[in-house]
Order: sequence, then C-alpha cells, then structure tokens
Amino acid sequence: MTFQLIDGKATAATIKAEIKQQVEALVADGKRRPHLVAILVGHDGGSETYVKNKVLACEACGFQSTLIRYEEDVTEGELLEKVAELNHRDDVDGFIVQLPLPKHIDEQRINEAIAWQKDVDGFTPINVGRMSLGLPSFVSATPKGILTLLQRYDIPTSGQKVVILGRSNIVGKPMAQLMMQKQWGDSTVVVCHSHSKQLREECLSADIIIAAIGRPDFLTADMVRPGATVIDVGTTRVPDATRKTGFRLNGDVKFDEVAPKCSYITPVPGGVGPMTICMLMQNTLEAYIMREV
Amino acid sequence: MTFQLIDGKATAATIKAEIKQQVEALVADGKRRPHLVAILVGHDGGSETYVKNKVLACEACGFQSTLIRYEEDVTEGELLEKVAELNHRDDVDGFIVQLPLPKHIDEQRINEAIAWQKDVDGFTPINVGRMSLGLPSFVSATPKGILTLLQRYDIPTSGQKVVILGRSNIVGKPMAQLMMQKQWGDSTVVVCHSHSKQLREECLSADIIIAAIGRPDFLTADMVRPGATVIDVGTTRVPDATRKTGFRLNGDVKFDEVAPKCSYITPVPGGVGPMTICMLMQNTLEAYIMREV
Repeated sequence: MTFQLIDGKATAATIKAEIKQQVEALVADGKRRPHLVAILVGHDGGSETYVKNKVLACEACGFQSTLIRYEEDVTEGELLEKVAELNHRDDVDGFIVQLPLPKHIDEQRINEAIAWQKDVDGFTPINVGRMSLGLPSFVSATPKGILTLLQRYDIPTSGQKVVILGRSNIVGKPMAQLMMQKQWGDSTVVVCHSHSKQLREECLSADIIIAAIGRPDFLTADMVRPGATVIDVGTTRVPDATRKTGFRLNGDVKFDEVAPKCSYITPVPGGVGPMTICMLMQNTLEAYIMREV
Repeated sequence: MTFQLIDGKATAATIKAEIKQQVEALVADGKRRPHLVAILVGHDGGSETYVKNKVLACEACGFQSTLIRYEEDVTEGELLEKVAELNHRDDVDGFIVQLPLPKHIDEQRINEAIAWQKDVDGFTPINVGRMSLGLPSFVSATPKGILTLLQRYDIPTSGQKVVILGRSNIVGKPMAQLMMQKQWGDSTVVVCHSHSKQLREECLSADIIIAAIGRPDFLTADMVRPGATVIDVGTTRVPDATRKTGFRLNGDVKFDEVAPKCSYITPVPGGVGPMTICMLMQNTLEAYIMREV
C-alpha cells in the first residue's frame, strides 16, 4: 500500500505564514499586533530552547513577544504577582509560564492563577473544563495540532473510530474530549492505556490511532488494520551512538513496518512536534481576536 | 442466564444511612452539621419537587438545609450577589441553583460564579476541568452515582471495556472522564453517539454499557453480549394510558429482552435515578470535610 506522510513541519510553516498574513492585514488596518508574553525561571537548557523557539515563532507570525526572566530564587509570591499583573494588562493577549519551575514553587498554584482568557497553553482547570463543556476556550497545543493535521489532510473523523493510546493530562484526555465533540472530531472515541485488556483488538478496528504513551516502537504492524491513519505523539530519547547528540527521538510507532499498512502516518520527528508551537501562535491570535474584535 | 438487578433505591438508602451515621458521630464530637443551601427561582412544578426531595434528603442525612426562594422577576444581579455571599459564608458547605432559570437570566453566568469548593452539583467549568485533571473536585451526581453502583455491586471496571452511549455534558462526557482515570474506573472507555458508524459492534464487545441518549428502548438484545452489565440512564416520558399520570418513565434499554442476557442491569425507574440526590448529599459531606477537617 502507498501511504502518505503527514508533514507537520510543512503544515506548521503554512499555518504560520497564514497567521502572519492575517496579522499584517490587521496592522495595515491600524490595529496593534498580538502580544505573547513568556515567563522563564532559571537557565534550564531545554526550557531556554523552548522559549527561544516560541519567541522566534512570534517573529515569524508578526506578533509582539516579551520574555520575562527570573532567577531560580524567585518566590512564589513574586510569580503570582506577575501573573495577576499580566491577567489585567490590556496590551497582553496571552502568556505562558515555562515549566518546570524550581521545586520551592507550586506549579499548580501558578497555573491556576492564570486567567483562562489569556491561558493560551490551555492548561488551567477552567480552560480544560470549558473545552469539555464546549464553551469558548483554548485547546492545548498537542491535541489541537493533531486535529489540525487531520483536517488539513482531509482525513475524515466524523463517525470514525479513533483509538487514543494513553490518558495523560496533556495529550490523551484532552484529545478524547476534542475528538468526541460534534463541533470538532465527532468521532467514536476509544481511550486505551496500560491496564486495557483488549488494547490490540481496539487498535485493529480503528480508523485512526493516536499513540501517546511514551513507549518506543509500541505500536507494531500486527496492531494496525490496512488503510488506517496513524498519529505518533511519542518522543522518547533513545541512545544512538551514530548521532552527534548521542540520542535520537523515537516515536511510539514502529514506523518501518507500520507505515506500509497505513493510508496516512506522521513521522517522528517532523510530524506532531512542529505543530505544537504553531498552535500556541494560533491560540494567541484567537485570544487577541476575542479581546480586540 | 440469571441476571442480578442493581437496586439503586436500596443502595441510595444505605448510603444515606451511612452518611447520617457519620454526621451524628461528628455532631456528638461537638462539630456543626453539614449545610446545603438551595436557590429556587419561581414556582415550576418539576423544580419544586426536585428541591423538596433534596431538602428531605438533607433531613435524612442529618444535614442542615436552607431553601432560598426568589420570584420569577429576580434580576441576574441579585442572584449573582447571593452566589457571591454564599461563596464566602463560613456556615455554608455547598449550594445549588435549581435549573431552569427564567429566560432573562444567563444560567451559564450564574453557574460560573459559583466557587468550585462549594459547587456540589459539579457543573462549573473549573470543577469539570479539575475532575478531568485528577485534582480534588466534585463529580456530578449521575456519573458519580453510576460509578458508586458499580463499586457497591463489586462489578470490576479496571481494564474492562466500558461503552458509553451519549456525549452530553451532564452524563456522557463526565462519565468518560471518570471511567478512564486510574483512581476511578481505570477502564478502556468508548464513547459512541448518534454519528458513530460502528455503535452496534462496540456495544457487542462491551463488558459494561452505559446508555444515556434519551431514546426509549434503543439498546436491544442483539447489541449486548451475554454476561454484560447494562446501566440505563434514560428517563424519557412516554405516554401511557394505563397510568394515572398518563405517562411512564422509559429507559434507553429494552429491558425485557436485554435483562436475560446480562449479569447485572439497572431498572428504570429505581436504578440510576435514586442515586443522584444521594450523590449530592455525598458531595455536600465531602465539601464539609474539606472545609472542617
């Protein structure tokens, strides 16, 4: 079977160009630019890279961006004060607090202090609840990115059986909420996890499989029916002596053997990954429109 | 096959007696009683009955209860003020606003004004989100009642396939969230609805079917595998000339033909229905314990 690769990198580039075009039209119309603020505490290498990429994406989309830095010894009170300030600032459309935070700070408390109208990461309980209830809300980046990929590749979801592997707060659970609702996926949704007794059977009858369990090469060819669509959310670092870095990113799907059975499949890297920052930009634009228009 | 009837009425009575015992022990220990407040606007017959039954349940559980009445012409502002007052009152553990409200009042705005710590109906977005994220929260009465019935009848759920028919905000969606999480159902969860292409096949492979679509006699014997557990959430009023009232409550399950195939099944009425007010009492007790202990 000839499968089609879902190119997340190209799709993300297209969407960012579309956002940029929309923003420049707004600016030409006399409006201000959307403004995303990122709070970064300390100097963790991974966090530095993530935040840098978010700032670069803002530039690519024509957004204003502000990076607020704190040293490791910032207090919870100082952060809460900054969150309260950003919640109320008229020139800020959305903001994110880059995780992880130092151990002396309660991440959940910081998260819950963010006003849902500016919670472009979509991680606050009120946003999660609003999404579940079908109210205006911000859908977190990974599930939103996956749904967008399915839509952009014209892969039907309504009435289709979507099997989600994993029930994490950042992928599995919101993905299920998104795919079951009429205005989004409108799918028959199945959530499987480590305790599921019939996981293989469920996968075999799926039209779409979304693998998000963080177990390299977990999904094998014998679990996929011919013609299925497979979305791989796994990004486990696996030691690899042939790479300069000493590791490679490995998905949850045994790509080489699964791909030939699929109609569509995402690669790792270059599939779901590049969509996440792009969806953060989309959410920021939506937050801006909600406030300005 | 000999099926066992799941007796919601008896289970609810047992739980209310257990709550009463726990409350009297607290009172004997010098503590105050849990206190539930109900707000009732207007004189809708259905609402009057519901609220009356809630007040009676409070009495049965040894709770203090207060009924606050407003006429139909109450303003949204007055209700919002009352909600804000109840949010802050130290002697109130939980409160409910009986729906429906008159058309000039935005039900969603009233709902969202309720502090989650006192939202014993579990309908506010923040509570829905907290439940989804596995944070301390109040689970709404119907899903909680169903899980409680399964637990009290020692029906295994971990790793089992639970098919939920319907994706409403008050049953299907929260039920899915509850059943998929490790600390509650820990099940493989399938959500089917009117657009599902393989609904019959999904039901046929289910260990537990939870029918909540509001279509009388929808689930027939040919959709149920021998030995399954069937929970019927449907309560559609169907004209019935043989009844004094002129109607009867009809479930989503064609009971006569489905029951003989089941290991466990809930009747309608007397199954899930009686559990809902009981779970409201349970939530009120939990709210009290969260505040007092």
